[in-house]
Amino acid sequence: MPKVGRNSWVIADGWIPPGSTGDDPALISHEAACILNANEEPANVLFSIFFNDRDPVGPVALTIPARRILHQNLEALPGAPLSRGIDYCLLIESDQPIVVQHTRLDSRQAANALMTTIAFPCD
Amino acid sequence: MPKVGRNSWVIADGWIPPGSTGDDPALISHEAACILNANEEPANVLFSIFFNDRDPVGPVALTIPARRILHQNLEALPGAPLSRGIDYCLLIESDQPIVVQHTRLDSRQAANALMTTIAFPCD
Amino acid sequence: MPKVGRNSWVIADGWIPPGSTGDDPALISHEAACILNANEEPANVLFSIFFNDRDPVGPVALTIPARRILHQNLEALPGAPLSRGIDYCLLIESDQPIVVQHTRLDSRQAANALMTTIAFPCD
Amino acid sequence: MPKVGRNSWVIADGWIPPGSTGDDPALISHEAACILNANEEPANVLFSIFFNDRDPVGPVALTIPARRILHQNLEALPGAPLSRGIDYCLLIESDQPIVVQHTRLDSRQAANALMTTIAFPCD
Repeated sequence: MPKVGRNSWVIADGWIPPGSTGDDPALISHEAACILNANEEPANVLFSIFFNDRDPVGPVALTIPARRILHQNLEALPGAPLSRGIDYCLLIESDQPIVVQHTRLDSRQAANALMTTIAFPCD
Repeated sequence: MPKVGRNSWVIADGWIPPGSTGDDPALISHEAACILNANEEPANVLFSIFFNDRDPVGPVALTIPARRILHQNLEALPGAPLSRGIDYCLLIESDQPIVVQHTRLDSRQAANALMTTIAFPCD
Repeated sequence: MPKVGRNSWVIADGWIPPGSTGDDPALISHEAACILNANEEPANVLFSIFFNDRDPVGPVALTIPARRILHQNLEALPGAPLSRGIDYCLLIESDQPIVVQHTRLDSRQAANALMTTIAFPCD
Repeated sequence: MPKVGRNSWVIADGWIPPGSTGDDPALISHEAACILNANEEPANVLFSIFFNDRDPVGPVALTIPARRILHQNLEALPGAPLSRGIDYCLLIESDQPIVVQHTRLDSRQAANALMTTIAFPCD
């Protein structure tokens, strides 16, 4: 089987919508980095956050167990380095190959909007 | 003509919305893996499903005839291994090169939302 | 300058929504293949259409002039080989390198939904 | 660490929606090229714009400081070469590796619609 994924990924359009409509927790505006670790070993993953007006923050470390996934709410990264309504980019590095997909749910208006893309594999 | 596709693909943001709005069957929330088999031979395709809290499930096997497509509703995989409202990732392996695109229709609110991305080719 | 694009592309989730809301022509449901020909020569482009229940159709030929773009409404391909509400995949081949992006506007419900992805480069 | 990005990118589905709903500036229809410069040097970036009926325009030059990002509203490029409701494609070239993601917010109808994709790396 080929290696499942790459070790270095970028999400370039990071922006967590500052508002939401309604009371359903599942419909609160959010962004996620959705990650597959298909390996037989845990993946140690580092998130570095870049901004338009200050030095990068991080890296923030997370571990994904072997043969498990992580759909990480980006507002809930350890230490909460991301605020709503701020432009950012994310560099995600891992000691095991992983796959990363970026998704935003925007419920500022009465109906939600969705967008997704595979992240950019650097290596 | 170059080979049309790859043999191994990942969809990293799998999540089937748990609700829908309205009675139109075409507007029920769903996710699809849209696959092209442009080859002169059938493609034998295996779906392995990864979760955040348990071992992977599968592989589930499907065959796409020669020079045909399959837009597979992911809730309707053989054996129905996927439930609504659960985070998952999908590893799709094929003995023939194929192309995979991932799409979600979310009609939980009064207007539908759509997202799509080409899946990640591992090989 | 590097070559701008590739010669062979796939759109795997083809489906033109069968209905629309409202009278604004710009808000009628549609799919588009958005193509850049950055070359100093015209690009001769062939569209082959694959289905789930019959043999492929085409190729349909179009020419994009040198250093021009084409945002092709897929319902308006020459000969109109595509109907609304039918699953299809598209193989796009060109004698010059091009770049292809796939977009769907779905206005079946009261608010429109959008999705886009870069197509898959085969070569 | 691997090189973070590439030197040449294409956005193929450029189109800035000609209308918007509501008074919230953050909900005005727009397109953005979201760019990461993770390098220790500034990135000098050139935007060339291609149309379906006339010669390309540009390049328009922008600089992204070292280790900074730019989420560029495409209607606000220097010299404002882009009008609403016009089909275009964008070739983005940089002297440093960068990553580019393309996003459109369309608020012509009562609820907004979103789409995003990683741009196409040419080199």
